[in-house]
Amino acid sequence: MTRLSPYAKKHKVTVIGSGNWGSSISKMVAENTAANPDLFEKEVNMWVYEEKIEIPKSSRHYSESSPLCKGEQNLTEVINQLHENIKYLPDITLPDNLRANPSLVDSVKDSSILVFNLPHQFINGVCKSLKGHILPYARGISCIKGVHVDEEGVSLFSESIGKQLGIYCGALSGANIASEVAKELYSETTVAYDPPHMDSKAPTPLNGSPSSSAVDLAEFKHKDSSGKLSKVNLRPLPSEFPPVDHSLLKTLFHRPYFHVRVVHDVAGVSLGGALKNIVALAAGYVDGLGWGDNAKAAVMRVGLLEMVKFGTTFFKHSVNAETFTVESAGVADLITSCSGGRNFRCAKYSVERKLPIEEVEKQELNGQKLQGTLTAVEVNNFLKKQGLEDEYPLFTAVYHILKGEAKVEDIPGLIEPK
Amino acid sequence: MTRLSPYAKKHKVTVIGSGNWGSSISKMVAENTAANPDLFEKEVNMWVYEEKIEIPKSSRHYSESSPLCKGEQNLTEVINQLHENIKYLPDITLPDNLRANPSLVDSVKDSSILVFNLPHQFINGVCKSLKGHILPYARGISCIKGVHVDEEGVSLFSESIGKQLGIYCGALSGANIASEVAKELYSETTVAYDPPHMDSKAPTPLNGSPSSSAVDLAEFKHKDSSGKLSKVNLRPLPSEFPPVDHSLLKTLFHRPYFHVRVVHDVAGVSLGGALKNIVALAAGYVDGLGWGDNAKAAVMRVGLLEMVKFGTTFFKHSVNAETFTVESAGVADLITSCSGGRNFRCAKYSVERKLPIEEVEKQELNGQKLQGTLTAVEVNNFLKKQGLEDEYPLFTAVYHILKGEAKVEDIPGLIEPK
Repeated sequence: MTRLSPYAKKHKVTVIGSGNWGSSISKMVAENTAANPDLFEKEVNMWVYEEKIEIPKSSRHYSESSPLCKGEQNLTEVINQLHENIKYLPDITLPDNLRANPSLVDSVKDSSILVFNLPHQFINGVCKSLKGHILPYARGISCIKGVHVDEEGVSLFSESIGKQLGIYCGALSGANIASEVAKELYSETTVAYDPPHMDSKAPTPLNGSPSSSAVDLAEFKHKDSSGKLSKVNLRPLPSEFPPVDHSLLKTLFHRPYFHVRVVHDVAGVSLGGALKNIVALAAGYVDGLGWGDNAKAAVMRVGLLEMVKFGTTFFKHSVNAETFTVESAGVADLITSCSGGRNFRCAKYSVERKLPIEEVEKQELNGQKLQGTLTAVEVNNFLKKQGLEDEYPLFTAVYHILKGEAKVEDIPGLIEPK
Repeated sequence: MTRLSPYAKKHKVTVIGSGNWGSSISKMVAENTAANPDLFEKEVNMWVYEEKIEIPKSSRHYSESSPLCKGEQNLTEVINQLHENIKYLPDITLPDNLRANPSLVDSVKDSSILVFNLPHQFINGVCKSLKGHILPYARGISCIKGVHVDEEGVSLFSESIGKQLGIYCGALSGANIASEVAKELYSETTVAYDPPHMDSKAPTPLNGSPSSSAVDLAEFKHKDSSGKLSKVNLRPLPSEFPPVDHSLLKTLFHRPYFHVRVVHDVAGVSLGGALKNIVALAAGYVDGLGWGDNAKAAVMRVGLLEMVKFGTTFFKHSVNAETFTVESAGVADLITSCSGGRNFRCAKYSVERKLPIEEVEKQELNGQKLQGTLTAVEVNNFLKKQGLEDEYPLFTAVYHILKGEAKVEDIPGLIEPK
């Protein structure tokens, strides 16, 4: 299906990160670039943190005669030869047009769309390495769940990436257990994208050259998600490219089995992915007591309301309550997290086994850390500083339970409306 | 705790119905009338459809020497002697101030608040028997889930009760599995109450006599939930009574383990309890395919949006979207119904066992009928008549699956946004 494109250039896309979610997103993005040759370059790069792996005998690709199966190999070479991320997304075939690349700098060369999908603790390091090597007019989408909260405030990973690289970066989040998405089981997601109004009325580039570095840096007055008006220097996208708008982003991510809704509310989408983990702890606690489905649904409902309140209070210029109540990144992600997510499960086990949750974390997560306990503490510190603990009784109850200062049985009393 | 009441009279409360939900509601209402003697008469009547029962040997009340345990007894006598509804809510102690009464007419004598909690097919018969025997200024609350839908429109059980009896009737609905509520496990509910503005500025009764029949019938212009302006004849509540307002209704139903929120949106609360069953079928279908938590959450989210759309389209003068997205009668009830409710389970089994859902219904429900399949058909007939099937792709997909005209695997394609 080749359509005549009015644009002289196409977008090249790079996915930065290759864990199970990074590989799953890369798979879908590569499927879509192949299906939309008028908008995108077919080949998609996926940056892979290089490591040595051995192909296990259990792999469908194992064969004694294959040289690739003799001893250790580079992960990128294995991915590119077998079209499978043997280590992080086994048994899923990746498209031929997805190229694993061990060089961060090389992987982003000429890419006008950068998709960030890596553990949040690596964001700063990666941005430092990328700085000066990306197209100055590139646009980003962060698939990294969560937000950074300290006593001073809440900051979004997407904004932090954008600031460090001097680009605009949106977010993608939803009820997306990676292994299910990779198997093409039906799910939905939410993409949030709300750049300063520049891409649609981009000035004609001065020379139209591929690097476009000659395009004047444009200064925009931009309200960030917290409502702070600041000057940002962003390069307009050269008009030779299809505009990066909601329609283009839907084309880049939407699949028949992965339905995308695109919204403007980047802060809401990001907060949804963080705050739901506090609620999942609460749901796990009451479920651990054997209180049944009514109690679990009640705690989820109260938690959802506190998510809405938190978002609309602290991001009052940008957050839309509906992001929480009707989008995949809100209510649907909350539902999956309270069904079988790790925060839910560990909280439930901690009650059933009468153990501190840190003990359960050690028993169950094989060295990984729960996101919810960390977020609950960070959010509590922030609320305490604002003198607003009482306004968020469920978030506060979870914090006090974590600290051993309240009992799970106290939850109904603690959250009872006065 | 006796407070000095400014009111000469107190409300007497009758619960009409004594199944497991009726008995559970009666228990809580009686607990609250005892705790609030300034507002309510202590004794609460519960109308019981009289039947003969034998106390089973498994009952905690069974004793060979007890005359009550010899042969068949009247259910009302058993309830009043043992303070337990042995047949419909076994092992739960009912308060001493709850009186089972086999006479419908006698049970409502002098009651100013009537709580309806019986299977919907008995509403018309019960109203016919009650007509002329209730206090003319009584107020009602219907705990009956669901709505009546035919090709012509949607009507609410609460409005039908109100119209037949010439009184105002609100509704109560929420994520309330009766057996869990009866055990005092934590849950929430939503009470909806929005009478014509009369109770707060009630005229002084002409004679102040207990029967108050001398109070002039007042005519009010009243918009019903569909927005139709009509004249209703309602008796104002005599000013000797505490006003029946949101605060009083909260006092009547709220318990430390049963948290009540009172809203104005009677239609939304009633629709929530009906439409969620269609969504629960869809969630059961995709879960039956083993599609995982993402898919289930996606179907629930899309269903929630169609519930909002249905409510705000067909009750545009009264329904508030938030009733569905943030109240117990909306999102929370949807969550419990999609966790283990019977519509969810039967739909899931029908896919797993490759059987029509009517077969599963017979195997699983012991002669009882699924609400969801009936509602799905009724709602589809209504939407078809309006030419609006395509606007509700999930509701329509469920209907076509029920009729064997679509496959469960088609759901993502059928509900994919264009």
